[in-house]
Amino acid sequence: MTSTALCEQFGIDFPLFAFSHCRDVVAAVTNAGGFGVLGATAYSPDQLDQELAWIDEAVGGKPYGVDLIVPAKFEGKGEKLSGSDLAGRIPQAYRDLVDDLLRAHDIEPEPNRRLGGSSLSGNTGRELLDVALTHPVKLIANALGVPPDYMIEAGKERGIPVAALVGAKEHAIKQAAAGVDLIVAQGTEAGGHCGEVSTLVVVPEVLEALASLGDNTPVLAAGGIVTGRQMAGMVAMGAAGAWTGSVWLTTEEAETAPHTVAKMLAASSRDTVRSAGRTGKPSRQLVSDWTNAWAPAKEGHQPLGLPLQSMLCEPVIRRIDVLASQGHEGAQALATYFVGQGVGLMNKVKPAREVVREFIEDYVAAAERLSSSLPG
Amino acid sequence: MTSTALCEQFGIDFPLFAFSHCRDVVAAVTNAGGFGVLGATAYSPDQLDQELAWIDEAVGGKPYGVDLIVPAKFEGKGEKLSGSDLAGRIPQAYRDLVDDLLRAHDIEPEPNRRLGGSSLSGNTGRELLDVALTHPVKLIANALGVPPDYMIEAGKERGIPVAALVGAKEHAIKQAAAGVDLIVAQGTEAGGHCGEVSTLVVVPEVLEALASLGDNTPVLAAGGIVTGRQMAGMVAMGAAGAWTGSVWLTTEEAETAPHTVAKMLAASSRDTVRSAGRTGKPSRQLVSDWTNAWAPAKEGHQPLGLPLQSMLCEPVIRRIDVLASQGHEGAQALATYFVGQGVGLMNKVKPAREVVREFIEDYVAAAERLSSSLPG
Repeated sequence: MTSTALCEQFGIDFPLFAFSHCRDVVAAVTNAGGFGVLGATAYSPDQLDQELAWIDEAVGGKPYGVDLIVPAKFEGKGEKLSGSDLAGRIPQAYRDLVDDLLRAHDIEPEPNRRLGGSSLSGNTGRELLDVALTHPVKLIANALGVPPDYMIEAGKERGIPVAALVGAKEHAIKQAAAGVDLIVAQGTEAGGHCGEVSTLVVVPEVLEALASLGDNTPVLAAGGIVTGRQMAGMVAMGAAGAWTGSVWLTTEEAETAPHTVAKMLAASSRDTVRSAGRTGKPSRQLVSDWTNAWAPAKEGHQPLGLPLQSMLCEPVIRRIDVLASQGHEGAQALATYFVGQGVGLMNKVKPAREVVREFIEDYVAAAERLSSSLPG
Repeated sequence: MTSTALCEQFGIDFPLFAFSHCRDVVAAVTNAGGFGVLGATAYSPDQLDQELAWIDEAVGGKPYGVDLIVPAKFEGKGEKLSGSDLAGRIPQAYRDLVDDLLRAHDIEPEPNRRLGGSSLSGNTGRELLDVALTHPVKLIANALGVPPDYMIEAGKERGIPVAALVGAKEHAIKQAAAGVDLIVAQGTEAGGHCGEVSTLVVVPEVLEALASLGDNTPVLAAGGIVTGRQMAGMVAMGAAGAWTGSVWLTTEEAETAPHTVAKMLAASSRDTVRSAGRTGKPSRQLVSDWTNAWAPAKEGHQPLGLPLQSMLCEPVIRRIDVLASQGHEGAQALATYFVGQGVGLMNKVKPAREVVREFIEDYVAAAERLSSSLPG
């Protein structure tokens, strides 16, 4: 549909990249002419293998990618700590705080506290990458910080482009120097981990910084993009395409829990908050009694670092989600979900292929609108 | 240069609106084919009269506007309080806090504390409007909240469009219902008072909300826009043009103090913060030891409300600026200034007419870039 260099490079019709934890969304977007990217971090290596085998079957050779999270900085890095060593660094006061929050919402804390895994500590990233490389993936993305050397080397060896998400021009410069093939410049309005600078500013800032170094690494725009007109605006500014995530959460294919979908459809763009209260690093999510318990809410507590906060919180948040699905009111008040400010524009459940079709139509209409603002 | 309905309505060549406190910038932008808007709030009625007379002479009939700040909510509203009544509501602890901050930066607090005026309380807004109406202004803008009835009525009587700045779709709906002629949808990346939602999200959200009500009030995009490519992106998304402010602060004509210009040219987009520590309402400004003394910095103090915080702080900030201009290091560390995240893209002092020319060129190039992404 569009004829850009990026489309040629990736063998796609439309430079719309769709991040999703759900294989059905990944396959639907790829089959509709975009590029699906499976968020792999929550899977075990065996599960990931099964998911990718399913996608291989569903897309019949069309291109898709995987996204891993291997952060550069985390609590205990380089100390060879076991999970229980890390667990010992979670103060009792924080455990109590979470228990009190649950009780205040009519949820009895579990007698034997389970802690989440420290997958964000980078120990499992390499295994997941190895599994992905046994499938015909056409992109490897790293969602947090500079990709580790082994990821960049594995990509170069096999001719698979490596992408990295950045929230500031300084990070883009570092990533390009590290040999990344595609930069996703993501604004503060994005769901999940995000920086402070808006998409409208960080995209041209990154493009300008790279150009001044003579670096022509393509840059995708990310953060808040849920329509074709926003994507068109970003391409007008020099982006090679768009990287999206939130918009797929309310598609028919997504496995988003019904109470979460309901919250998202009702939410305005002001119903999200950037808070470190879930993983220890600032991430954008739906406002709820959970996010209100942590800074930056007034009287909110300072979260622990990465991965301690997520080890403490993830099992509890999953339990909250289960209870919320069952109609538990306290749990529904606590339930949250990573989503960007674009949630304010997500007002209807649609099939993923329909979202791609609407993106394309809206993109073309936006290009015509801009052209027609010029004389003659 | 562009042929939009808005250009016809306002008698301009290019739908670029430039907010500035400096008459020279206003005249230069208007004379270059854009639309200059003088920020009038800091002037006394007599001063404003002189400034507008100067502009009338400089633009020879070309269109320009004025911007007032008349907020809907403020401390003491409707209570008919005098300045000294309001002053009594500033706690001693806050006075001490400011004095301690000064001493920590080698500045001795003045023995007799001066407090700023409560112009933000709305008492002087009407007088300034009356003065503006004796000049051939072609736009009256209200920067904070729904314009008071007398402003909208005065505009309707004289056929002068009234504009209002909004940071959320709910506010846009209210403003349109109140009879505003032009809506400026401003993102969180903007300098000065701003909301939480990014420009990329709030602009389409406002457009969609108005369209769903059958309301076709034109919407300008604002917040972070310092280049023609960003403006083009916003027009592609459906905006009627751009409202800008920060980019004019580093023009040759601006009266920005040299130490502030130096800070801005060196700043990246991450060197601003949205804080209520200056006026009592969240506003974006350069990070400094002053902004770090107030929330949302860790350990930052909760600011007072509007206008108490600005009554307490403005005289001190002006004194800091004077000392900073004289090279006082402590004052330079404290000095701050309202500016948006676009400051990261402002790297050179230029004449205002040159900024307009570059905007136009960059806008046209962006439109061509987007067109060329479509096939054939």
